[in-house]
Amino acid sequence: MDTKSIKQFAKLILKFGVNLQNGQCFELSCPVTEYKVARIFIDTAYEMGAKYARVRWNDEKVDASTYLNADEKTLTNVPKWFVLSKNELVEKNFCYVAIAADDPYAFKGVPEDKIARIAKARSKALKKFSDTVMANGIRWCVVSVPTLQWAKTVFPNSKKPEKDLWQEIVKTMRLDCDNPEQKWQEHVDNLIRHASRLNDFNFEFLHFKNSLGTDLKIGLAENHVWLSALEKAKDGVDFIANMPTEEVFTAPHRLKADGKLYSAMPLVYNGNIIDKFSLTFKEGKIVDYSAEKGYSTLKGLIETDSGTLRLGEVALIGKNSPIAKSGILFYNTLFDENASCHLAIGKAYPTTIKNGSSLSTTELKDLGANDSVEHVDFMIGTDDLTVTGITKNGEKIPVFTDGDWVI
Amino acid sequence: MDTKSIKQFAKLILKFGVNLQNGQCFELSCPVTEYKVARIFIDTAYEMGAKYARVRWNDEKVDASTYLNADEKTLTNVPKWFVLSKNELVEKNFCYVAIAADDPYAFKGVPEDKIARIAKARSKALKKFSDTVMANGIRWCVVSVPTLQWAKTVFPNSKKPEKDLWQEIVKTMRLDCDNPEQKWQEHVDNLIRHASRLNDFNFEFLHFKNSLGTDLKIGLAENHVWLSALEKAKDGVDFIANMPTEEVFTAPHRLKADGKLYSAMPLVYNGNIIDKFSLTFKEGKIVDYSAEKGYSTLKGLIETDSGTLRLGEVALIGKNSPIAKSGILFYNTLFDENASCHLAIGKAYPTTIKNGSSLSTTELKDLGANDSVEHVDFMIGTDDLTVTGITKNGEKIPVFTDGDWVI
Repeated sequence: MDTKSIKQFAKLILKFGVNLQNGQCFELSCPVTEYKVARIFIDTAYEMGAKYARVRWNDEKVDASTYLNADEKTLTNVPKWFVLSKNELVEKNFCYVAIAADDPYAFKGVPEDKIARIAKARSKALKKFSDTVMANGIRWCVVSVPTLQWAKTVFPNSKKPEKDLWQEIVKTMRLDCDNPEQKWQEHVDNLIRHASRLNDFNFEFLHFKNSLGTDLKIGLAENHVWLSALEKAKDGVDFIANMPTEEVFTAPHRLKADGKLYSAMPLVYNGNIIDKFSLTFKEGKIVDYSAEKGYSTLKGLIETDSGTLRLGEVALIGKNSPIAKSGILFYNTLFDENASCHLAIGKAYPTTIKNGSSLSTTELKDLGANDSVEHVDFMIGTDDLTVTGITKNGEKIPVFTDGDWVI
Repeated sequence: MDTKSIKQFAKLILKFGVNLQNGQCFELSCPVTEYKVARIFIDTAYEMGAKYARVRWNDEKVDASTYLNADEKTLTNVPKWFVLSKNELVEKNFCYVAIAADDPYAFKGVPEDKIARIAKARSKALKKFSDTVMANGIRWCVVSVPTLQWAKTVFPNSKKPEKDLWQEIVKTMRLDCDNPEQKWQEHVDNLIRHASRLNDFNFEFLHFKNSLGTDLKIGLAENHVWLSALEKAKDGVDFIANMPTEEVFTAPHRLKADGKLYSAMPLVYNGNIIDKFSLTFKEGKIVDYSAEKGYSTLKGLIETDSGTLRLGEVALIGKNSPIAKSGILFYNTLFDENASCHLAIGKAYPTTIKNGSSLSTTELKDLGANDSVEHVDFMIGTDDLTVTGITKNGEKIPVFTDGDWVI
């Protein structure tokens, strides 16, 4: 993509995503291959008045070689300076943008149980930081730019996969119009309306059913709040944590999920693909699971801690969302989760509970909001999905029919 | 350069440069644009038995934007985690390779006094680390790979500047032969012979003179030792701190330099060029200086602390060294200092004093070895340079005539 378009992309994210304020610090997490994009983000951040802007570089090829070859004890012993470097973002109220653009096959060949143990150690070491982020302690935004291997997976037959993927990203980001900012405003308002209607119903349960075999009744946490794109950070400034975003979401009750679900899309987790998997729940807990592909990776995820045996998010997305309508499988949760109703294993967003950001983990748990070092979304929405809301009076209200909103 | 050649390059450096041991940790400092080189280094390190290998990425375009735009107070307040991340290299006995490949004009447009203040703050914050490195507390090696802007400066009229620069680097690294390792062994032995002869003379003074106007008498530190390529780290393992290297070097006496010198080549320092400069010394101290280009940068360097007013290294290189014979001005100290006799402003290597690594800064200073947060080499050797050694008995021994060894 040309410099001008990338700059427009960066500007939209810095303004609508993290809502960078004059005099604020900014960090971008970026793959080294995308250094041209990073430079534009940094320059743009300074133009918008950033006090300081830096890049946290990463490279999945180096990571893969390290996961494969390095001494496991060294990798699971997360250095103190690394934790401090993340906590600094909170202490100095940085806003940060993370570019999620992994090769879905990045860690192919690395023993999945080793990856799981390393990921667990890192998640544990960074729990304080991720808890703060999930409670909107700072403003953050996850976005994507095409990296070669990822683009090749999405468009295996294309001669210019990166170009094709940029084009799709531009569409999902509503940058293919004259006034993207206005489009975003309208879009955000629309999502807020959906969330507001769900809050009015204040459902006790949601019942998911489709032809894949999914038949799952999920209780919602007490004092749950349906949220959408626009959130408020601790400092009172609005932000959008994912761009694109099409979801409205809330906290399920950690002790209330019964039935079985089947995945609707592959899930890329820690450089591996988990596909065609099922989870069986009893009283909120996963009591059985299967996967045609990536079983060990799924096992590693589910066995991370007691919280990864339970749900932390339920999100609704109609099949007519622009991403869903593109029909493209992105192999990237940022996009795929916005094309399909999804759930998350692990910690619930405290913000999806009334006043949740000021409650302790114990208080949140008492209301049903799950805790864990992890939070991993996975897709369950299909074209024939029905979602039925059940109110406290036992009234059944159709929320989704044939994969789209009817409420 | 092709992958196979880069691998050979990486192998030579990991073996002869830092002498990576089985089970050791390794860090590579690398510009993001050279991520392909970094990946090969990391893979090669693991093949050689590294316990853990990582990359510390940097990008001079991001740095330049930051130096130009960021709040100075934020930049001079070096975060604790960054210092810890460097100290970890010492605590865990990492060996590290730093790729020096800066665009000589990287920081053009940034106020030079601002750069100087930021550089000073960083040097001060990292003094413990750099002191350890200069005393060979860990094994390290500085090398170069061509980055586009640097290559363009060296070969402004070339259509393939990076390719041309790789070719020259390959030559200076003695990789353009059947058995580079044997060539390096011979080369190292040869440098050791030069150093050994100088140690036998145990000169009290060296007198530098050339047609540029340089006329400078430098006293050598008490108990000084001439060193060359091969050094021994604290853990007893040999290493070569610069590749290429052509120098033999020792510690001048901090209180004994009288006369004037003229630079023989431009000096790239903190993303700026200092050229056609002179320094006047009295009793070891710089009492006057001038520069046709980059005066403010030179001023910033000299005024860093009391130690940057004095010399910390004197190094001899004959005009027939392969780099000197190439006739190429590299605008990169790693190469240019190996084409020309040079001195350094700032801290002396404790290793250039007998048992210096186990002496305190005060003890070192008493012997004449300079201390500072900085150590910056600059070139003074010309084709007509004469260097005369003066022994403790006042005997004058020609060391260099017409820019080359005669001793």
